[in-house]
Amino acid sequence: MSTILHSPPPIGIFDSGVGGLTVYKAIKRLLPQENIIYLGDTARIPYGTRSPVTVQRYAQQDAAFLVNQGVKLLVVACNTISSVALPNLQAQFALPIWGVIEPGARRAAVTTRVGRIGVIATEATIESNAYYNAIRAINPELVVISQACPLFVALAEEGWQQHPATQLIAQEYLAPLQAAQVDTLVLGCTHYPILRTIVQNIMGPTVTLIDSGECVAMEISQQIHQPPPNLAAPCTHDQFFVTDSGRRFRRIAELFLGAPIENLSAVDIWNNPETIPTNNQ
Amino acid sequence: MSTILHSPPPIGIFDSGVGGLTVYKAIKRLLPQENIIYLGDTARIPYGTRSPVTVQRYAQQDAAFLVNQGVKLLVVACNTISSVALPNLQAQFALPIWGVIEPGARRAAVTTRVGRIGVIATEATIESNAYYNAIRAINPELVVISQACPLFVALAEEGWQQHPATQLIAQEYLAPLQAAQVDTLVLGCTHYPILRTIVQNIMGPTVTLIDSGECVAMEISQQIHQPPPNLAAPCTHDQFFVTDSGRRFRRIAELFLGAPIENLSAVDIWNNPETIPTNNQ
Repeated sequence: MSTILHSPPPIGIFDSGVGGLTVYKAIKRLLPQENIIYLGDTARIPYGTRSPVTVQRYAQQDAAFLVNQGVKLLVVACNTISSVALPNLQAQFALPIWGVIEPGARRAAVTTRVGRIGVIATEATIESNAYYNAIRAINPELVVISQACPLFVALAEEGWQQHPATQLIAQEYLAPLQAAQVDTLVLGCTHYPILRTIVQNIMGPTVTLIDSGECVAMEISQQIHQPPPNLAAPCTHDQFFVTDSGRRFRRIAELFLGAPIENLSAVDIWNNPETIPTNNQ
Repeated sequence: MSTILHSPPPIGIFDSGVGGLTVYKAIKRLLPQENIIYLGDTARIPYGTRSPVTVQRYAQQDAAFLVNQGVKLLVVACNTISSVALPNLQAQFALPIWGVIEPGARRAAVTTRVGRIGVIATEATIESNAYYNAIRAINPELVVISQACPLFVALAEEGWQQHPATQLIAQEYLAPLQAAQVDTLVLGCTHYPILRTIVQNIMGPTVTLIDSGECVAMEISQQIHQPPPNLAAPCTHDQFFVTDSGRRFRRIAELFLGAPIENLSAVDIWNNPETIPTNNQ
């Protein structure tokens, strides 16, 4: 048996569904020897249409489940949950908790040269003004142009990264951002990195795309002391939990991760947060 | 004051969101003098990803709310709920309850001349085999070709009925149904009538589209004795309830109905099904 180099307490990541897997992927790329436990609260997706109080309650249950698994830090891999529930979670739990909005906003603020930043996200995130507020808190002189892209989640989940329809839709959504001559564009939804190539092609090479998941991964990797990578002992201990049957999650997860997903289990987090079913469905 | 000609007990219609408004519109067209109470359980949308037991429980709460409003009959204006919860509801409540699947299946079975029927719907409805089973129960020799169209709901809610992207997406989804040479196509999701024109154009004039909402409206109109229409006294007593703030519902409802929506209130159906807030938000 080879020695496992990563530190035993895993990193916990949660989202209402599959979107947070792009954050998982970014963290895995920078911290390949960390164990990760991922929770997708698929039974209660989407959080975007819930009231803030409801999202806070769900997020607390999600976080409690992962804390009970012994994670050493938590990543809220969802812009809606980050925008609504992060301060509550940080007050309720003692471990470090990261959201995706602040890291994305920080990177955007230091990246822009012309002072005009675009933000694309779901309707719920745009309406929350979370990125606008976070960016303006860093630098009140920055101009933030926001654009909701309601079809992008469904297009990403269809796997239509290069479909002509996606091209047409993206052109329409991105036109106001092109007109505003932003030089930095925040992908403010964890699904959107799946459509990154088409967005980059439309915006052109002079616009820097900010993937919030990558930003949080970079900030976390600066906090965790890493042993030298050992390619002979890849980490194979990640676990994935969902709160419904998981069939749809598995299909889209493979699309998002580019590989079959292992160690996927269903769990009832709200009635019995300590239970970890061993069935691999 | 003019006399109101419709019979006082209203018709109750419910859905998890806005989709059922196409059914509302169809019923309103055939029964303009009926009062209608519409409930969209927007706080718990979408039902399509929930387990059957959960959908049955939600549907029972939705139905109880409308029964407490004194409706004389109930329409389950959602294919997912109809496919999963209709028998339970019919066992639990004494009033007549209609779903959308059986009327759509009946019409499709009598419409087809070549014996090949297409069904387009959400992933959840297609996976439930509800239309397949309903059509084959009528005539086991009919061939049913099913196609999930996951992007159609989002396109309808964007109001992109004539967008080039919708054209491209619809062409792709409908290609297998064209190849199978169906002569009858069931719009098996209450959102899809919004995209009816583009679907009809792609399928061509020889294919008959079946709008399940229209079918249930026709069956109900045959059951209700109507006074002669009185255009001077239009019914203005319809009420709309949602279970969240209703902002998004209002926006999309106006798109679906082609007119501003009046009498929209939020209600907490699961804790206090008798409450009718009077606030019009």
